[in-house]
Amino acid sequence: MVGPARFMNLLSCFELGLIDQLRATPGLTAADLGAAAGTKPDTVEQLLHLLVKEDFVALDESTGRYTLDALADVPESDLKRALTYMNMIKVVALRQVFYLTESARTGKLAGLSTLYGYDGTLYGAVAEHKDLRESWATLMDNVTARIDPWFFGTIDVPAGAQVLDVAGNTGLGAIHTYELKKSPGLHVTTFDLPEKEEEALENFRAHGVAEHCSFIGGDVFDGIPQGYDVVLIKHFLDMWDKAEVLTILRGAHAALRPGGQLHILVPVYPENIKDRDNYNVDFFPSFFIGCTMGQGGPQKQSVYVSWLEEAGFKVTQAVTKDPSELPPDAIPVQAVLSARKAG
Amino acid sequence: MVGPARFMNLLSCFELGLIDQLRATPGLTAADLGAAAGTKPDTVEQLLHLLVKEDFVALDESTGRYTLDALADVPESDLKRALTYMNMIKVVALRQVFYLTESARTGKLAGLSTLYGYDGTLYGAVAEHKDLRESWATLMDNVTARIDPWFFGTIDVPAGAQVLDVAGNTGLGAIHTYELKKSPGLHVTTFDLPEKEEEALENFRAHGVAEHCSFIGGDVFDGIPQGYDVVLIKHFLDMWDKAEVLTILRGAHAALRPGGQLHILVPVYPENIKDRDNYNVDFFPSFFIGCTMGQGGPQKQSVYVSWLEEAGFKVTQAVTKDPSELPPDAIPVQAVLSARKAG
Repeated sequence: MVGPARFMNLLSCFELGLIDQLRATPGLTAADLGAAAGTKPDTVEQLLHLLVKEDFVALDESTGRYTLDALADVPESDLKRALTYMNMIKVVALRQVFYLTESARTGKLAGLSTLYGYDGTLYGAVAEHKDLRESWATLMDNVTARIDPWFFGTIDVPAGAQVLDVAGNTGLGAIHTYELKKSPGLHVTTFDLPEKEEEALENFRAHGVAEHCSFIGGDVFDGIPQGYDVVLIKHFLDMWDKAEVLTILRGAHAALRPGGQLHILVPVYPENIKDRDNYNVDFFPSFFIGCTMGQGGPQKQSVYVSWLEEAGFKVTQAVTKDPSELPPDAIPVQAVLSARKAG
Repeated sequence: MVGPARFMNLLSCFELGLIDQLRATPGLTAADLGAAAGTKPDTVEQLLHLLVKEDFVALDESTGRYTLDALADVPESDLKRALTYMNMIKVVALRQVFYLTESARTGKLAGLSTLYGYDGTLYGAVAEHKDLRESWATLMDNVTARIDPWFFGTIDVPAGAQVLDVAGNTGLGAIHTYELKKSPGLHVTTFDLPEKEEEALENFRAHGVAEHCSFIGGDVFDGIPQGYDVVLIKHFLDMWDKAEVLTILRGAHAALRPGGQLHILVPVYPENIKDRDNYNVDFFPSFFIGCTMGQGGPQKQSVYVSWLEEAGFKVTQAVTKDPSELPPDAIPVQAVLSARKAG
């Protein structure tokens, strides 16, 4: 019940600059903080109650002076990452979840439609709406930068392979593939909607990989280009319900040469849904159904394994990232699944 | 971080009728539930993950059949009360808290202004907007019905007293006062904004207390009618910051005859803000500052005591309701403070 109020109370203390003020000058009063933040001391006092309760901030009741408590020990880089995530949740999710029931019924984002007059998915809306794009893209770039090295460290890309990055957006995955798996003859093709082409080609040029990377425009549900040794599907399957995931996996199967390998990067639910230290089922159902797609959501690793088999693959590797290696504020727990098309 | 998503995921399972379906027919599958709710089975499965995690609902993984778990043991009346509160939070707070930082800076409800084009407080907006009014009034009527008997059981109203109910809205408090404290000559006056008069007088007639109750229109900040033996201030002081509370208390002091009594009903924060079983500081700061007033919020009982003394009163009674007597879903913990004007 108190989830939405707690979420914004905490974020607002950062947005008002109260935490930065206390980091710079420990021992400020509500009056000092109010003057700096442009808000009434009464309001500062009210909003800091929660942070005192949570031991984030300490209050000396005899003097009315605040200092950072647990927040003093959090490195700025960790704080920045958590705040990027919180800002994304605020901008993308907080208002949209109001419409969750309608979105669940219609399979369309009633929130985007009402709030932005946009009919489609979040991935389309970010192209048109700067506030959504900035909060979303900043987060996704952070996530990709953190997770791609692990993904490419976990998979094998044979020398000289022809690689297809399905739903590869504007080419960042292709660039990472080339840079991290470089070999003579290695070529990576980004496959995504035609409107991504221009930016992808620019990115290839900017990273000096234009000779080794190319772009094919199209829609995965109309068929996937064929004749590849390796197909990558990163951050994509979790956007779809089972029927769509199977269509994509069958398309990937057809895209591979016999003996070729598919590698998937996807967040997964824990095998034991009741795992209390894992917050994926707390977040992703509302997020995908209410805020990004009107459908979809991650599955357990074991479910993806069975769907890969259903699509004709032989699963050769399924590794879920050890949650203890993730920063404590990270919600998604990613898995790599590798599968082979019979040779 | 996951607060807003968890909140709406849970509420949405009720709104979609999934819980009612499972109560009526235990053992339904996601496909059965989807057919009944008009949503895809994939969506049902995603949204029920959280309820399985929380042991609200049980899933037999071998058959894919759901049954109510902990929710089976919750009496319908408890569930209805909790859902009334959740619905109020959804309609009044969930979207408005997005604008909390701006509301904190300006002292005005940026959310109401943006979402409803309404400039003012929630209490004004409910008069114009049916969705706000229904979710808000349903809750407040429930709260008043539950808490008024305790309030009137705790205070003393001398026989034949002239009573003033400050900010008495449309007369319900006056009616309760007369009915619960009936004595020859007892007269209760509701004092509130002039636009409440008509409905208040109608309510007095409908309850057969028109002879014993009357209405005076006005604004507490322009002065409070004088010459009373007892002044009541219920559900009102928590809406204001310190300066306004002191103005109201001084007005109440002036309204009383020497020796008269003031009785306050107000939610309070726990004396130990870190009390982990108490959710008042988790909810009310965002709620008052971001969603209802642009200011205000409860205080500790000890703070209200000191403010009463600052306004010239002698405090004669301060009782906080025992939280263990409240239903587990109730957030506000109410207190009664009684104070005397020197005779």
